[in-house]
Amino acid sequence: MDLEDTLLMMPGPVPVAPRVLRAMSKPMINHRSPEFAAIYDDCREVLADVFQTKNDICIISGSGTAGMEAAIGSVVESEDRVVSIENGKFGERFKDLAGLYGQVDPLEIEWGKPVDLEMLEEKLEAGAKAVTLVHNETSTGILNPAPEIGKLAKKYGALFIMDGVTSLGGDEVKVDEWGVDLAVVGSQKCIAAPPGLAMVSVSEKALEAMEAVKKRPYYLDLKAYKKSGDKARTETPYTPAIPLFYGLQEALQLVKEEGMEARIKRHSLLSEAVRAAMAEMNLEMFPKLNEYSSYSNTVSAMKAPKGLDGEEIKKEMKKRGIIIAGGQAHLKGQIFRIGSMGNVSSRDILTTIQTLELILREKGLLENFGAGVEAAAKVIDRL
Amino acid sequence: MDLEDTLLMMPGPVPVAPRVLRAMSKPMINHRSPEFAAIYDDCREVLADVFQTKNDICIISGSGTAGMEAAIGSVVESEDRVVSIENGKFGERFKDLAGLYGQVDPLEIEWGKPVDLEMLEEKLEAGAKAVTLVHNETSTGILNPAPEIGKLAKKYGALFIMDGVTSLGGDEVKVDEWGVDLAVVGSQKCIAAPPGLAMVSVSEKALEAMEAVKKRPYYLDLKAYKKSGDKARTETPYTPAIPLFYGLQEALQLVKEEGMEARIKRHSLLSEAVRAAMAEMNLEMFPKLNEYSSYSNTVSAMKAPKGLDGEEIKKEMKKRGIIIAGGQAHLKGQIFRIGSMGNVSSRDILTTIQTLELILREKGLLENFGAGVEAAAKVIDRL
Repeated sequence: MDLEDTLLMMPGPVPVAPRVLRAMSKPMINHRSPEFAAIYDDCREVLADVFQTKNDICIISGSGTAGMEAAIGSVVESEDRVVSIENGKFGERFKDLAGLYGQVDPLEIEWGKPVDLEMLEEKLEAGAKAVTLVHNETSTGILNPAPEIGKLAKKYGALFIMDGVTSLGGDEVKVDEWGVDLAVVGSQKCIAAPPGLAMVSVSEKALEAMEAVKKRPYYLDLKAYKKSGDKARTETPYTPAIPLFYGLQEALQLVKEEGMEARIKRHSLLSEAVRAAMAEMNLEMFPKLNEYSSYSNTVSAMKAPKGLDGEEIKKEMKKRGIIIAGGQAHLKGQIFRIGSMGNVSSRDILTTIQTLELILREKGLLENFGAGVEAAAKVIDRL
Repeated sequence: MDLEDTLLMMPGPVPVAPRVLRAMSKPMINHRSPEFAAIYDDCREVLADVFQTKNDICIISGSGTAGMEAAIGSVVESEDRVVSIENGKFGERFKDLAGLYGQVDPLEIEWGKPVDLEMLEEKLEAGAKAVTLVHNETSTGILNPAPEIGKLAKKYGALFIMDGVTSLGGDEVKVDEWGVDLAVVGSQKCIAAPPGLAMVSVSEKALEAMEAVKKRPYYLDLKAYKKSGDKARTETPYTPAIPLFYGLQEALQLVKEEGMEARIKRHSLLSEAVRAAMAEMNLEMFPKLNEYSSYSNTVSAMKAPKGLDGEEIKKEMKKRGIIIAGGQAHLKGQIFRIGSMGNVSSRDILTTIQTLELILREKGLLENFGAGVEAAAKVIDRL
């Protein structure tokens, strides 16, 4: 397979614009220099708009998981009680991390089902230092009710730690308005930079909590990042992945040029287009919603049709040059997922749907060939 | 200053070859694919030669410090006693990390002075789960006696954890022969890849120790990297920094083309050339040696001459387009450091010395102008 000619339609890593790829080819620089500080500061300026926050934003050389661990490990220790909401793979990861650093009280919900806010409130009433939420659950394609959970966290005095790895940069996230104390995003999702950087916004309340924690991780200590970032000349505590910063800076420049409002609208309509197509193709969406939750605007998860395994769909798509995702853990084979993150275009979406139609027809699982593409195109017309 | 025209002569990040920079511009790929596995495996094959080991090598998306923390945090917990050798900034970091995860018994030596092996043996006699050593202390330019320390570790049944961040790839390191259980290297030093990846070799004994540790870090859990790396299709536990893997693969290809023997000889002679020049320029080397230690073959640390601060030298060099390093922590101003790591050439070394001569003459601190360059050139002739 020619890698240069593959269309990535997974929920990250996403295709990276050629100008972002080219930006990474610049020579190395001293990471303790005004030149590096300027790049870092430039990134933070655009990120403030992505996060809708006045909080400081730290950039860690590591994956989104590194960002999640930094957020938890910097404010939670030994006896601290953490309520962890889990309705998918990444919720589970947050729960595991909370259990590693403190005492976790999980709110476990069947993967793909919505968060029960009443049950959450019961748990918070019992007292908690923090509550963790995966805003957009990449593994199941559900968007969880961050504003409502932020209100509950505030009501009960808990820190609100939010994984916005696949929402920030592609969907509406209002860190300050929602009261998110620590919000985490990965570079390789909606921001459409290469993988390898995690960005975490830190509220005053979170910073105070850090200062009281005796034993924080070392490489992932957000207090160290905060301190280095506050210097007259912005630095990172440890050597940063310089080419990834070049790439992030250029990717954020693209975000700025498009404008966050237009970017969110594009993500939203392209996902709606996927869902419209799936309905015509008799493919059922995987998430179960309630009034507080909705389908993700950056990744769509569908049940595999009877007689065709999700992994088989993935394989057939790959043969045709399109990479989509299957299900994770116990969902493997049962679902398949199409990302509509980052710089994805309407053409990419239509190609993906068309290819899926071809596969389903070949397997004798599609009645109205072309109806999916048509339904998607109709939504895309509103772009 | 034009960044494209700067010569990096710091002890990392080092200049990266244009073909390595270009390699990073390839499109993103799925990190759970045969394509990514092939890159990872290709890197490990060359790294086995760099490390001189049959042990498995894990590649972490993070800085050298992340690699150090992974090594310690994966095998050390709560009541475990760790003997940490400190004779420079990075020894101090290892000590801090050991103290974070276990009970540290530091062997503190004045920065720049050699390790006292008798004192070390006394500490090991008292029993220790692990001993940590910075092989090549980047902050002071001393090469510590890893083979002797490996023997002592073995004698007393301690795990030998070695920071080879600025020796591996540029100087002789024999992981298996020396009995190093966990050896760490960063991508941006002698291997001459961009910063952002850490590689750690894991011995059977280290793996057994990990399995017995109850609470390992999450993102930096070497057991998770080991497990993912052992799969039929090599993976990383969390999303890897794909462009950095492209870069590392190409940089290691360069290492392979040069051959490790020639590479070590080049590093060794170029550092000798720096030292020969310094002697002619009446600049004193900073490290104090004993029979077991030697000057570093990848970074040279010199005392700043009377009447000229080390930071001032750094500044004057930068004005002329050459980036060298000053001293860290309490050594700031007292010393200056010249890296001869990675793809550094004899021309780079001669330019650096020549520029330093010009500065010293301007300050009235040099008698025999040109003698430094001449002495260096004589050593370089042996290349």
